Amino acid sequence: MKVYIIGLGLIGGSMALDIQRLYENAEIIGIDSNENHLNEALSIELIHQKGNINDDFDGDFVILAVPVDVALVLLPKVLDSISENTLVFDVGSTKKPICEVVENHPKRSNFLATHPIAGTEFSGPKAAIENLFEDKVNIICEIEKTAYKKQEKALEFFRNLKMRIRYMETKSHDKHIAYVSHLSHISSFMLGKTVIEKEKDEKDIFDMAGSGFESTVRLAKSSPSMWTPIFKQNKKQIVKSLEEYIANLSSFKSFLESDDYEAIFNEMKNTNRIKEILK
Amino acid sequence: MKVYIIGLGLIGGSMALDIQRLYENAEIIGIDSNENHLNEALSIELIHQKGNINDDFDGDFVILAVPVDVALVLLPKVLDSISENTLVFDVGSTKKPICEVVENHPKRSNFLATHPIAGTEFSGPKAAIENLFEDKVNIICEIEKTAYKKQEKALEFFRNLKMRIRYMETKSHDKHIAYVSHLSHISSFMLGKTVIEKEKDEKDIFDMAGSGFESTVRLAKSSPSMWTPIFKQNKKQIVKSLEEYIANLSSFKSFLESDDYEAIFNEMKNTNRIKEILK
Repeated sequence: MKVYIIGLGLIGGSMALDIQRLYENAEIIGIDSNENHLNEALSIELIHQKGNINDDFDGDFVILAVPVDVALVLLPKVLDSISENTLVFDVGSTKKPICEVVENHPKRSNFLATHPIAGTEFSGPKAAIENLFEDKVNIICEIEKTAYKKQEKALEFFRNLKMRIRYMETKSHDKHIAYVSHLSHISSFMLGKTVIEKEKDEKDIFDMAGSGFESTVRLAKSSPSMWTPIFKQNKKQIVKSLEEYIANLSSFKSFLESDDYEAIFNEMKNTNRIKEILK
Repeated sequence: MKVYIIGLGLIGGSMALDIQRLYENAEIIGIDSNENHLNEALSIELIHQKGNINDDFDGDFVILAVPVDVALVLLPKVLDSISENTLVFDVGSTKKPICEVVENHPKRSNFLATHPIAGTEFSGPKAAIENLFEDKVNIICEIEKTAYKKQEKALEFFRNLKMRIRYMETKSHDKHIAYVSHLSHISSFMLGKTVIEKEKDEKDIFDMAGSGFESTVRLAKSSPSMWTPIFKQNKKQIVKSLEEYIANLSSFKSFLESDDYEAIFNEMKNTNRIKEILK
């Protein structure tokens, strides 16, 4: 198994760890525009050697694990210089733009659009962890545009990672993921901001923060370089989800202001359904 | 050590477990208006025997671990019928109302107002866990109004639970806790609501939810019976914190709508400070 990994952050790095664990003779060539990350990945043995973005790509897979704006630039270039049997797959959190950018590329059938729903709030090579993908969902878009043999090879790889596969249209993916992922990040970032701003006047309030606050604000530790281009690419859907979220918060506030505690109780009671849903 | 625990939920039940672990000859008498919870607490041996709210209370402590609206009703009654050496302490998430309700009670010095910042999203006797309070902050209000010997006794108990004590004015407590606890719960409940509503039209989107969504929405599993009276009692501070939160979300949305991705990046970058703050 010979694999190029472009982008040695949490996702690329974790894939590297699993490939080494699963394939005895794996050869992993790492590429990263951040020279420090590249050296770090080599020194902690995520990768076996350094590569260069201008290489010719052969082997089994090229994994494109870079911020989604960079992916739009790199994917066509990478496809230009891969050998016939190599499959490139991306792992980005938006799927419509990346599929559109290679829609008419002569090597389109060498590409598979995927989104492994896995991660933590940390980033960089040292954030890589083994088994990150076990039991996680991997969403695959436009499967029919990838050459059949290459589909099979990729699916076998994802099966080895123990991922559950789900097929979706790019537009549906981007719409749904706005709600269950992108919106959570914004709600968390803005909660963190609200409390930090309050702290300017009122010292030491974080002393009072319990595990509830920590859990709700965890995603506010995420990388701005990774998330800004995601928000940009999925702007329309995110604005819509934010409008709905703000409307729900405003209506909760109105119930409070008008002392309608029955409504407040019911809002929470109905939302308790999340217990069953997330099981 | 003889202790009455009124309210055998997560907090009362977890205190019961720790008391049994820490004090060899502990005798715990449990009281709960929910007969099922009371029987459950007895059968899983949280308590040694059932008591009644109309009992005369003697022994070391009476722990009042009921919803904050019920606490306002029960505390004066309990103080009316305790013996001289007994200390009552509450564990509620609001502190001004409970202190006000017993301000002029002849047994005021037998009461200590506390708020252990500890919990999970679960409730009822079965939610009780050992060591819940270890390394957690316990906020104590109006310490000077409690008789000195009883202060000492309570502080020794909290020390045995390995809690860190912090003293605050009731008003400051209620203001600060609105930001680091109450607001998180509302942001989480409304996030859950927004996504559940979306799911009505778009099936199976929860399949796509990763650990990020789960963490952000965890508090939406909390008990409405416990939280409605908290929101009611701390209405003014919560409305204010909600206004600031909604304003921050709206401004984020405006940045997105006007394609100001530099502002979006900076909002996140500044909020990343939460990493250091929560360490």
